[in-house]
Amino acid sequence: MPKAVDHEARRRELAEAVWRVISTDGVHRASVRAVAAESGWSTGSLRHYFPTQDSLLAFAMELLADKARARLQAIDDQDNRTVLRRIAEALLPLTTEHRIEVEVWLALLARAQVDPGLQRAERDNREALLSVLSGVLWRATAHGELSESRNPDLEAVRYLAVIDGMTLACVFYAERISAEVALAAIDRHLDDLLGVPSTLPA
Amino acid sequence: MPKAVDHEARRRELAEAVWRVISTDGVHRASVRAVAAESGWSTGSLRHYFPTQDSLLAFAMELLADKARARLQAIDDQDNRTVLRRIAEALLPLTTEHRIEVEVWLALLARAQVDPGLQRAERDNREALLSVLSGVLWRATAHGELSESRNPDLEAVRYLAVIDGMTLACVFYAERISAEVALAAIDRHLDDLLGVPSTLPA
Repeated sequence: MPKAVDHEARRRELAEAVWRVISTDGVHRASVRAVAAESGWSTGSLRHYFPTQDSLLAFAMELLADKARARLQAIDDQDNRTVLRRIAEALLPLTTEHRIEVEVWLALLARAQVDPGLQRAERDNREALLSVLSGVLWRATAHGELSESRNPDLEAVRYLAVIDGMTLACVFYAERISAEVALAAIDRHLDDLLGVPSTLPA
Repeated sequence: MPKAVDHEARRRELAEAVWRVISTDGVHRASVRAVAAESGWSTGSLRHYFPTQDSLLAFAMELLADKARARLQAIDDQDNRTVLRRIAEALLPLTTEHRIEVEVWLALLARAQVDPGLQRAERDNREALLSVLSGVLWRATAHGELSESRNPDLEAVRYLAVIDGMTLACVFYAERISAEVALAAIDRHLDDLLGVPSTLPA
């Protein structure tokens, strides 16, 4: 019985080792050898999972997407404005743990420019995010919350741009762009899209 | 007479060599040795300008800021909405040459996470950009174009976020986010800020 390999448990164990190496030492040090040292596995058996460093980094990109997906799926079905706010909260680097994810993401983005596999993974992740945002914004149109003069798909692109841009600002201009400023900009954006909410409790 | 070193000409010559190496081979290959080979200088005399690779990359970041500044300064004094549109055009990767600048910028951003000097340079560049944008938006408030209910400084932060986020989208999701889509999102944003412009010629 213990001989049957639990692939899911192994994957999780590897994921944690990869993540520890990246968040402590940086993406540029995330070699198969470093992950082997961190996980206690032999380099040889690790090569079975990651024949190259590129495959290791592709796995790190998958982990990032998994983490984002888990946070997005935890968003309860509430009104459309709240869902849009929660999506921004799930993506912006508002906590230390999430700040590390953003640092990894930026490092992977730089790599993606010379790695077609990473570039494809990044594009797929963006596509998934955009389709979630578009879905919420089309629903808002159907409910009369978003003006019919607006194109929900274009608004999805613009809203994701605000989130991505605020993410960069939070990382590189933290003295001026605190979590409060980032969320104030998001709220202002949602006011423009959906109108200023009533100040009365719902 | 020829003994007097023309530092500005040397700097320009070096800048071109650094830029050719980075845009052809990528930031990760921009070593002092590679720039020496490209420029025809000896590694020794190049070390006088760039004692370390970090100083070389800091110089690349300066070049990026110079290029952006030159494009921004070329914007004629026109109405505030046009100035804001032109700033976006100057920053978004709408041409091949500018796309290369964005690729270099992303690579330097990833480096900046582990290089305090680069991080400071990036922050200074953002600060300069934000103060240009704030200036235009305060002027728009004074002219009654921007509603007094809006905070021009927060709007500057949000507008820069849209530009940065659209920049990432143009690079990593080019099939969906063309130059036209990026500019349509910018125009929609300016409509929200300043009102839909009259369709009559000014």
